[in-house]
Amino acid sequence: MKIQEIESGKNKQLKWVKRLQSQSKQRHKEGVYIVEGEKQVRECIEQIPQRIHTLIIDEQVEIPVLEQGGIAVLRVKTEIFKSLSLDKTPQGYMAVVTMEKAELSRDVLNPNGIYILLESIQDPGNMGTIIRVCDAVKADGIIYNKACVDIYHPKVVKSTVGSLERVPCYLVEHLTDGISLCQSAGIQVYGAYLSESEWHFQKKYSHGTAFVIGNEGQGISDKVIDCVDARVKIPMLGGAESLNAGVASAVLLYEVVRQRPHIYEGDARTIESES
Amino acid sequence: MKIQEIESGKNKQLKWVKRLQSQSKQRHKEGVYIVEGEKQVRECIEQIPQRIHTLIIDEQVEIPVLEQGGIAVLRVKTEIFKSLSLDKTPQGYMAVVTMEKAELSRDVLNPNGIYILLESIQDPGNMGTIIRVCDAVKADGIIYNKACVDIYHPKVVKSTVGSLERVPCYLVEHLTDGISLCQSAGIQVYGAYLSESEWHFQKKYSHGTAFVIGNEGQGISDKVIDCVDARVKIPMLGGAESLNAGVASAVLLYEVVRQRPHIYEGDARTIESES
Repeated sequence: MKIQEIESGKNKQLKWVKRLQSQSKQRHKEGVYIVEGEKQVRECIEQIPQRIHTLIIDEQVEIPVLEQGGIAVLRVKTEIFKSLSLDKTPQGYMAVVTMEKAELSRDVLNPNGIYILLESIQDPGNMGTIIRVCDAVKADGIIYNKACVDIYHPKVVKSTVGSLERVPCYLVEHLTDGISLCQSAGIQVYGAYLSESEWHFQKKYSHGTAFVIGNEGQGISDKVIDCVDARVKIPMLGGAESLNAGVASAVLLYEVVRQRPHIYEGDARTIESES
Repeated sequence: MKIQEIESGKNKQLKWVKRLQSQSKQRHKEGVYIVEGEKQVRECIEQIPQRIHTLIIDEQVEIPVLEQGGIAVLRVKTEIFKSLSLDKTPQGYMAVVTMEKAELSRDVLNPNGIYILLESIQDPGNMGTIIRVCDAVKADGIIYNKACVDIYHPKVVKSTVGSLERVPCYLVEHLTDGISLCQSAGIQVYGAYLSESEWHFQKKYSHGTAFVIGNEGQGISDKVIDCVDARVKIPMLGGAESLNAGVASAVLLYEVVRQRPHIYEGDARTIESES
């Protein structure tokens, strides 16, 4: 652990952190992203210490215990931490974490698994919710196309509350490639779609299941919907035209869980309705 | 329809609109709130014309057709509209709408209905999602305590995308009063809670059902959990400790819908996964 005291906001390393926060391109070029918040940073230290590159710690809080060597610690003045932080009430903990880039292939797919395929999801809040829900149901992965918001966007990272580090996320050039791979592994692919669809309750999800969730405004594109095995819809009984993409994903995924009692009749952790 | 052209940002009526946006107290004192966005304002004109008090319309967009008399229209310059708007890309439509204050009593409760009871929900996004989901499942109402975020907060209004005008919302002094009223009407009250709970799938929701959702950080208070008829929990199978309050509400409410096929086997509207 090398501790470096930083007193000037003009420091080169702090500028680097700011670039990583604001530029998706920079994050992917270097293969790192920013995690902020005490709980989040402590979870990274515990669960993925080998992936921590640098810690940025406010001088007013304690430096977490690090068993892993080689991690640089930047100790910064409170006003500097505040200027870096994207939180309204900064907690004083930030980490630069190495991305875990998972490559999608037929071999990594679980034929009995649960997957979410995302087409051009734009809203960081929706993306974060979907990642968190996938973690909650222990989904086997998220497959998303290039037009989606960057999963390492600070707002996405924040709203996953640590789930991003636990859910395998696979970026594909075209979503149809992801669909073909799922199908070749024996996974049934369902499109969440408004027309010519059956109620989502009416399908049997006991084998490998993947749901395609479309863009917030446009829904699933024609090209993609043509590839799915079946279309499902969630009943809209009142005046609301739709659910947001995160909520829709949760309703679909928990129906799969409900149909597989063996996966929840073990000793799952069960805490409810925190933000 | 009285059209008034406004060219100065210092106009008294515009200052009034700003106060209504920023001050919950002012909104409740006058019994009005602000709706913004073309779709949202047009829906109000169509569905609740008698509740529209004033329209604020950018001079660059057309004034919507109003069949209702007595609505004041403020026609404002684009830069003034922008200064009023809380949207990143203002659409030029805003309305001052009268609140519909529904008083909770045993008589208004549907013994076979579906209700959500909210204890001290703080996040406007969660509140908006819950209102939208309640509209989607055609819930009979939301009962919330005073410590919740104001349902007429501009961020809540925006995220409900029109659902706020369709879901009966009942403010109660203490949530326990709402629980007692539900119980006296024969409605079963379930607390979404982490300990000593059964899986939410394992309950039968064919009769009147209400779920209590607790505060984002603290969950349901001891005082409130002591009043519920039973506790339920959503399985957490991976590393996520919880779902956010909006997602948890959706998972619970759609389990009720699933168990009541008569309500969705009609001709429900069914559009999926927009934001």
